[in-house]
Amino acid sequence: MKNYIKIDEWKIIEEGFHPEHNRITESLCSIGNGRLGQRGMFEENYSGDTLQGSYIAGVYFPDKTRVGWWKNGYPEYFAKVLNSVNWIGINIHINGTPLDLNNCSVRSFVRELNMLDGYLYRSFIAKLATGEKVKVETKRFLSITDDECGLLEYSITAMNFSGELVLVPYLDFDVVNEDSNYDQKFWEEIEKSTAQGEATIVAKTKKLDFVVGAAMKYNLFKDGEPIKMPALPTERKKYAGNIVMIPVVEGETITIQKFVGIVSSLNYPVTLINSKAMEASFRAQQKGFHQLLNEHSEAWHKKWEEIDIKIEGDSAAQQGIRFNIFQLHQTYTGADDRLNIGPKGFTGEKYGGSTYWDTEAYCIPFYLSTADESVSRNLLIYRYKHLGKAIENAQKLGFNGGAALYPMVTMNGEECHNEWEITFEEIHRNGAIAYAIYDYINYTGDQQYLAEYGLEVLIGIARFWAQRFHFSQAKNQYVMHGVTGPNEYENNVNNNWYTSYIAKWCLNYCAEMLEWLKNEDISRYKEILKKTFFDENVELKFWKELTSNIYFPFDEERGVFLQQDGFLDKELKPANALESSERPLNQKWSWDRILRSCFIKQADVLQGIYFFEDHFDSDTIKRNFDFYEPMTVHESSLSPCVHSILAAGLGYEEKAYDMYLRTSRLDLDDYNNDACDGLHITSMAGTWMSVVKGFGGMRVKDGLLNFKPMLPAKWLSYQFKIKFRGNSLSVKIEKNRITFESFGTEDIQVRINNQLIVLGAQAAKTVSFNNVPIIQ
Amino acid sequence: MKNYIKIDEWKIIEEGFHPEHNRITESLCSIGNGRLGQRGMFEENYSGDTLQGSYIAGVYFPDKTRVGWWKNGYPEYFAKVLNSVNWIGINIHINGTPLDLNNCSVRSFVRELNMLDGYLYRSFIAKLATGEKVKVETKRFLSITDDECGLLEYSITAMNFSGELVLVPYLDFDVVNEDSNYDQKFWEEIEKSTAQGEATIVAKTKKLDFVVGAAMKYNLFKDGEPIKMPALPTERKKYAGNIVMIPVVEGETITIQKFVGIVSSLNYPVTLINSKAMEASFRAQQKGFHQLLNEHSEAWHKKWEEIDIKIEGDSAAQQGIRFNIFQLHQTYTGADDRLNIGPKGFTGEKYGGSTYWDTEAYCIPFYLSTADESVSRNLLIYRYKHLGKAIENAQKLGFNGGAALYPMVTMNGEECHNEWEITFEEIHRNGAIAYAIYDYINYTGDQQYLAEYGLEVLIGIARFWAQRFHFSQAKNQYVMHGVTGPNEYENNVNNNWYTSYIAKWCLNYCAEMLEWLKNEDISRYKEILKKTFFDENVELKFWKELTSNIYFPFDEERGVFLQQDGFLDKELKPANALESSERPLNQKWSWDRILRSCFIKQADVLQGIYFFEDHFDSDTIKRNFDFYEPMTVHESSLSPCVHSILAAGLGYEEKAYDMYLRTSRLDLDDYNNDACDGLHITSMAGTWMSVVKGFGGMRVKDGLLNFKPMLPAKWLSYQFKIKFRGNSLSVKIEKNRITFESFGTEDIQVRINNQLIVLGAQAAKTVSFNNVPIIQ
Repeated sequence: MKNYIKIDEWKIIEEGFHPEHNRITESLCSIGNGRLGQRGMFEENYSGDTLQGSYIAGVYFPDKTRVGWWKNGYPEYFAKVLNSVNWIGINIHINGTPLDLNNCSVRSFVRELNMLDGYLYRSFIAKLATGEKVKVETKRFLSITDDECGLLEYSITAMNFSGELVLVPYLDFDVVNEDSNYDQKFWEEIEKSTAQGEATIVAKTKKLDFVVGAAMKYNLFKDGEPIKMPALPTERKKYAGNIVMIPVVEGETITIQKFVGIVSSLNYPVTLINSKAMEASFRAQQKGFHQLLNEHSEAWHKKWEEIDIKIEGDSAAQQGIRFNIFQLHQTYTGADDRLNIGPKGFTGEKYGGSTYWDTEAYCIPFYLSTADESVSRNLLIYRYKHLGKAIENAQKLGFNGGAALYPMVTMNGEECHNEWEITFEEIHRNGAIAYAIYDYINYTGDQQYLAEYGLEVLIGIARFWAQRFHFSQAKNQYVMHGVTGPNEYENNVNNNWYTSYIAKWCLNYCAEMLEWLKNEDISRYKEILKKTFFDENVELKFWKELTSNIYFPFDEERGVFLQQDGFLDKELKPANALESSERPLNQKWSWDRILRSCFIKQADVLQGIYFFEDHFDSDTIKRNFDFYEPMTVHESSLSPCVHSILAAGLGYEEKAYDMYLRTSRLDLDDYNNDACDGLHITSMAGTWMSVVKGFGGMRVKDGLLNFKPMLPAKWLSYQFKIKFRGNSLSVKIEKNRITFESFGTEDIQVRINNQLIVLGAQAAKTVSFNNVPIIQ
Repeated sequence: MKNYIKIDEWKIIEEGFHPEHNRITESLCSIGNGRLGQRGMFEENYSGDTLQGSYIAGVYFPDKTRVGWWKNGYPEYFAKVLNSVNWIGINIHINGTPLDLNNCSVRSFVRELNMLDGYLYRSFIAKLATGEKVKVETKRFLSITDDECGLLEYSITAMNFSGELVLVPYLDFDVVNEDSNYDQKFWEEIEKSTAQGEATIVAKTKKLDFVVGAAMKYNLFKDGEPIKMPALPTERKKYAGNIVMIPVVEGETITIQKFVGIVSSLNYPVTLINSKAMEASFRAQQKGFHQLLNEHSEAWHKKWEEIDIKIEGDSAAQQGIRFNIFQLHQTYTGADDRLNIGPKGFTGEKYGGSTYWDTEAYCIPFYLSTADESVSRNLLIYRYKHLGKAIENAQKLGFNGGAALYPMVTMNGEECHNEWEITFEEIHRNGAIAYAIYDYINYTGDQQYLAEYGLEVLIGIARFWAQRFHFSQAKNQYVMHGVTGPNEYENNVNNNWYTSYIAKWCLNYCAEMLEWLKNEDISRYKEILKKTFFDENVELKFWKELTSNIYFPFDEERGVFLQQDGFLDKELKPANALESSERPLNQKWSWDRILRSCFIKQADVLQGIYFFEDHFDSDTIKRNFDFYEPMTVHESSLSPCVHSILAAGLGYEEKAYDMYLRTSRLDLDDYNNDACDGLHITSMAGTWMSVVKGFGGMRVKDGLLNFKPMLPAKWLSYQFKIKFRGNSLSVKIEKNRITFESFGTEDIQVRINNQLIVLGAQAAKTVSFNNVPIIQ
């Protein structure tokens, strides 16, 4: 854990330069607008440690590892998110010496992500080895009101000298991926042009030929007044810029505003890329830096009104939740239904910007409550559109009859990951995709989604499970072998409780929903049966037999579900018996040692209990939580939120709070020593759930909102807003009381600790935790 | 299975061109001399399907797959054998049209590997689209008497035309590896030169800077008479050759002999590479093609006298065993103790030319009997020299106190493989390395090897095992989790019977040998204890406790050792229930399906029984064989030989013979549909064992040779020669009788079916199977 980030309710602040943590700060200071993502690296050249990253959603490279041990059934490639055009670059030369914070003495350094207004700010004073002292201030943002535009303002004050400043604003496609093999590069130049005050480059990616165009213009100011200076266009391979020489007198401040347009062939025909990039850059310049920043900030303020969670009395917790909400909304806006939410968004190279089960298990609940229904529905339809490819994928693995196995990692519906223990075995993602359909319908009441799309997906998934179990003569039960559960610190195990459980649930849920549609709309029912070649007599019958006789490992003595066969043969130790020098295990231990240990990366049995909490009494939940929680090292970002929610439900206040801090400040405090690689975007939705579902105890049952609120001891209050079936509701929880404000046009019923309350339209109501209304 | 190779006792013959099997034939027709390996591809350009391969022992590339999921403890790279200089190349143009068998009508095609004389022959008649008809004959070999020289002779007869022939002999480093990612190339040119009649190139590999030089000269003949023709030197990047234009009259034959020298920085300083390559080429030309071929063939004849196995009455079996012996001796000669035996030798790209456990488990027994003791001893010392790196490797994985884990795949003692289920889990290789020490000492009686080298290796290995088991409270026994056995169709299993068994044996054997040395040479004993920081009181005591309480999975009902925990939960089916379209499974099934099935890639429990047959009564062996054999698909080349030996011991004659054919003709008949990738070199030693240890029943017990001979029904006799403790012995087995001929200088005792026989020095003796001497 690192503690160099200053606590502030609306900002992420690095005060004093921490080059040793530069990659982490770069990740934390990422900005984005759903289409573009930019790490918080410096504008000017920096020779110290940095992970350079400018990403474009949907632009990737199909990398290969053609090695002898490629497994039959693997995809042709795995996807790699590409570091794209460096659009922020401005190199600075002071009397001929390049400005490079690695070679200066630096003071008064501040790097600050302003979440309220949505921009990144930096300032510092640097003294060069040659004696010149400058003060620098920068601001940048990726506009959410015009998402093809990135803008920045860079001011430099000559503090103790007169002489010459050279500014080199540039665009650079000659960039590297850190994860490339032997520094392979991925961009090829198509065209470029430079002129005084502007530059444009169009480049394409190798293999998939994504074409990206970037164009820049800039304005110059001296002490705030516009100036014109001659510029020398400069070009090299995949690089274009301007060299601007400016005489300065001691005390003067030179400011450059850079207006960049970035567009890609995802949105325009290749022939228009050049002109569209130039247009965007021109548009931004016309509007001006401050005007566009104002519009951008206004848009963020409006968003915050809908999405903010306010916590009183605990600034660290407040900062954590806002950071999470902010980064999620920077990553995915719902504006483009071809996109999805990658585990690291566009803040680093890891996980390739691809879609994982995180979307269904973690992000959909977040968007259900905080965005229009259509956002979640589109995320479901994203998978519906990929059903054909999921069926093909299952066929490649030897399943038939319309069985569907969704990819673990995907850019376009195809599997693009190639570790067998993940690709072929981490099949629980199928369960999460089915569960999200249930979750969506349960939350929205939009049962018609089933008839229209959902049921076909459920049938494909159920069919997969029906084939994935097999009958064990020795056990006289159905078993499921060769599985990797959400706890990826076990690979290729037999009878993973979570996977078998969710599989059984999928089969039953699909059968029930078939029954429902049969009663509801027989013609659509028949249509689906025909389309899917579904044989009720054979398939439903077999599903019934199967689900009534599945083996689940169970420890009678402790009364706990066993994570998998053989779990009790392990040396069982609590995680707090580990030396701190051994953590995180995935960086300190070899893989085999991790696999052989009892330590759990992320909730696995507990993940199942979280999904299906109504299936278990609270004693069972408690026994399992008490057994597994101490062995869990939470080295998956998706883990602590689930523990926080369960702990809250069990009344383990301290644990719930600890886990909340861990999920909400995972990156800010760098718990797992990996924030340098990028942020854990998808788990940020889990942080939101920790508050709303955990502390707030929010559930939807039988079409009604339920709350079982609790208030962490350190907090004075917390407040969140949710959308529910056409209503919008603010919920504030204080000591012993909960206050609702409804923004809807109709009365709405909610349950507080099982007691029904009616909230008037457009009205507020405060209720004590023991359910007596105390203020009307 | 393919059956296009003609049966011949001394030759591998493709009669009629089979372009659809060209890669297979190229593999089968590989030539080599321990330092260089050359696939049987064509000299002239061929636009059809081909796997181009010219390899140099010890020259490799450290490839990377820098992907997000690199596991902690993985090596920095994995080794890739590099396709090296194409030295055989001669392009032919006939009246301006290139000769390319893919664009001709071809008849009378023969490609023939002559194993007796050690060369590759090819002849054909081709008719070009333009009407010209030529007859071509080629011969090539890699000299074993001057192992820096490769020679070839190429004759072309103008059958129906007069005109111009253009011959372009060349050297080409601008070659590709098929397994490279996106056609990355690995060679960089350092220098080259061409002149009339000669060309030289020196190139180096990327990253590791192996420098290789190749030089060529040639002679020309018309109808057998030397001619001189002007030549045009030709060069391009990494390529150098000569263009020779020769007028021909119908009926004339033009012959070119190409003399190539190839040397590398493994053997010379970089500055000498150029001149040493030229020297070798010059040397070859001076001696002449036929003279050098004669010497080469003579050397092969001499080898054959020592290594041949003769089988009467079964030409297919005869061809199989000779092919195996020939290819083994082409791959490893024992001349360079830095080299070892890769699973595919130098006949393809797979397995990277690296060392696996195959050497210890399969090749050492072969070299023990057929080569000087020093060859096996050097192979053991190869591992002794790597002990430090094996200890480092174990440390990387979290083991300490001098525990050693040898790499699964290595070029230089470092692990160079990166699949966790292999690298971290297939730890049984440690057992094979210990077993080879036992095997060597048992065979040679050279117990001093222990004191000098072996014991340190045993201690490192035993220490590893002592830490790799852990105590299970639930079982109240020591267990070993997270293992992949020799049957690689199971990954990450618990209590793999084979691995646990050999681990236990290692611990006991090391303890015994420590005891032996303590009694034998107390001062050396103390020296080793000091060097290894060995604490008798702690370590030996713990080993004793551990080995007395290890859990081995066992099925009481069937009386069989269980391959691993949970094996009986699988659906147990015989392999013959599989459709032939499903075989080989590793090409037809996905990996997860293979893992979940009961099907066995290679002997696993049976491998253990084979190693330790004296530990088990024959009923136990039979029960286990009967249980596992039907489920074994033999998709490891190392599998059938072990089954053949066990079947022979059990008196299952037919099974023993089937398995013998399978191992000996694995590549010739392409059982596993993978001979296209290269030959299965290491398993060829297993074929030899199938005859000598299987049918011959040869064992060494208490310093004596033992035989339990049987004669496959189809055979009239078989005969092999073995070296044993300074003696050399020929053994011929006919129906009901066995004939020995001793070439040693002292009497030697052997046991036939447990009865002791004395063989006189330099004498022959025939004994009936029921042990009555019948001819003196």
